[in-house]
Amino acid sequence: MPTSHSLENSQIFISFTHKQAPPNPMAAAAPPPPPSAAPEPSMAAPETTPIGHPVFTRIRLATPSDVPFIHKLIHQMAVFERLAHLCSATESSLSSNLFLSPPFHSFTIFLLELSSSPIPPLLSPSPSFTPIEKTFNFDIPVNDPEKDAFSIYYGDQQVIIGGFVLFFPNYSTFLGKPGFYVEDLFVRECYRRKGFGKMLLSAVAKQAVKMGYGRVEWVVLDWNVNAITFYEQMGAKVLPEWRICRLTGDALQAYQNANV
Amino acid sequence: MPTSHSLENSQIFISFTHKQAPPNPMAAAAPPPPPSAAPEPSMAAPETTPIGHPVFTRIRLATPSDVPFIHKLIHQMAVFERLAHLCSATESSLSSNLFLSPPFHSFTIFLLELSSSPIPPLLSPSPSFTPIEKTFNFDIPVNDPEKDAFSIYYGDQQVIIGGFVLFFPNYSTFLGKPGFYVEDLFVRECYRRKGFGKMLLSAVAKQAVKMGYGRVEWVVLDWNVNAITFYEQMGAKVLPEWRICRLTGDALQAYQNANV
Repeated sequence: MPTSHSLENSQIFISFTHKQAPPNPMAAAAPPPPPSAAPEPSMAAPETTPIGHPVFTRIRLATPSDVPFIHKLIHQMAVFERLAHLCSATESSLSSNLFLSPPFHSFTIFLLELSSSPIPPLLSPSPSFTPIEKTFNFDIPVNDPEKDAFSIYYGDQQVIIGGFVLFFPNYSTFLGKPGFYVEDLFVRECYRRKGFGKMLLSAVAKQAVKMGYGRVEWVVLDWNVNAITFYEQMGAKVLPEWRICRLTGDALQAYQNANV
Repeated sequence: MPTSHSLENSQIFISFTHKQAPPNPMAAAAPPPPPSAAPEPSMAAPETTPIGHPVFTRIRLATPSDVPFIHKLIHQMAVFERLAHLCSATESSLSSNLFLSPPFHSFTIFLLELSSSPIPPLLSPSPSFTPIEKTFNFDIPVNDPEKDAFSIYYGDQQVIIGGFVLFFPNYSTFLGKPGFYVEDLFVRECYRRKGFGKMLLSAVAKQAVKMGYGRVEWVVLDWNVNAITFYEQMGAKVLPEWRICRLTGDALQAYQNANV
């Protein structure tokens, strides 16, 4: 994945990485289908196609004990973007400023869990969010070379962390109500192109609707045609004329004692 | 101020309106000067140039009782952008979702107050923020045709609301720490080109530094050269390649019952 020189020169840290999750041709329909009483095809798949490779997934809220995983995922994202030299997040910095507010009221992280067996219920589920579960059935098993580094054990059962989405409330004065801004969406390499990125982003959209919020926003690189197509298929519009302004580093520090 | 057709078609609600506050040629230096023990020139101006027209200003945190002013300012901003038909904010909607968290931890508003006399201290100052005061001295008095609609009385003293900035925390996973995102900056028409927009934005930057935050970000229209120059003079960089994606309206509502 090319990283433009101008990006590095501009000290761009934005790392919304849908660009690593190109459109899944099996997940192209937008808007999503209405609810149905019929059993979900993917849930039924393991029974109807026993020769397949079921992957049980769950999206749940991250907790402070997940920080080591989150840190590793962020650094993988930075390496992937060839911006690792700009990534200064540490487990300590993440721990000190995440999880300080109730979920959805500030910085919030959903984690994607995967397992070849049904995932056990959470022992301490959050009252704020019911985990979203979905079963996929793949023709070919996923080979995850980093399985051990991203494993959680629920009792004896190994569950793998496959990705995350970090988002937080923003506000529209015109709507007079909040929305969500998605800062990062990341799926580990071996799990890409399978619909998991869409699953994570959809979970944020669904939560926004549940809370009566007016928008979900994020950013994309203008040359990333695959990602733009993917987002448009999910119902998003790309706003062509707006540019991000960023005040950071020494230029920001200069305001410390500014006589505004 | 032209509003492009594509903006309306795209249902753009973003209303960051620095574009209405072109560069003040008297405030072009960036970064801001270091602190000095010398008296601030503008503070001394009323004494040294008694024939001028002093304007005493204060930036303070907005409170719930300011909602009627905030609502009027937002609607002025929408009218100015020719997007009033897209502005559905009401006093009720603003009241219901602003001021729910401590200042700076969620949606936060600074108000700009102006008066021809020194502004009395706040009776109930916030422990989170010490108001920023600055005195200007203008050759020509400001004619404010809407003075009465934007007046607050501290005892007998009339103080005018001249503008606002609405901002909230965002998060950089690469930095591993928060920043501020500025959603709106608005100065009423008769007070523009006098440095008040810079004062409001600088106050946000200063607060970000105080809190150890890593960035202040906002958006600007790519054709708004005056605003871009102004921001660059304040030390900001414009990120050329990123585009905003927005999921809103029916496309967002479609996720209500989505089987993500």
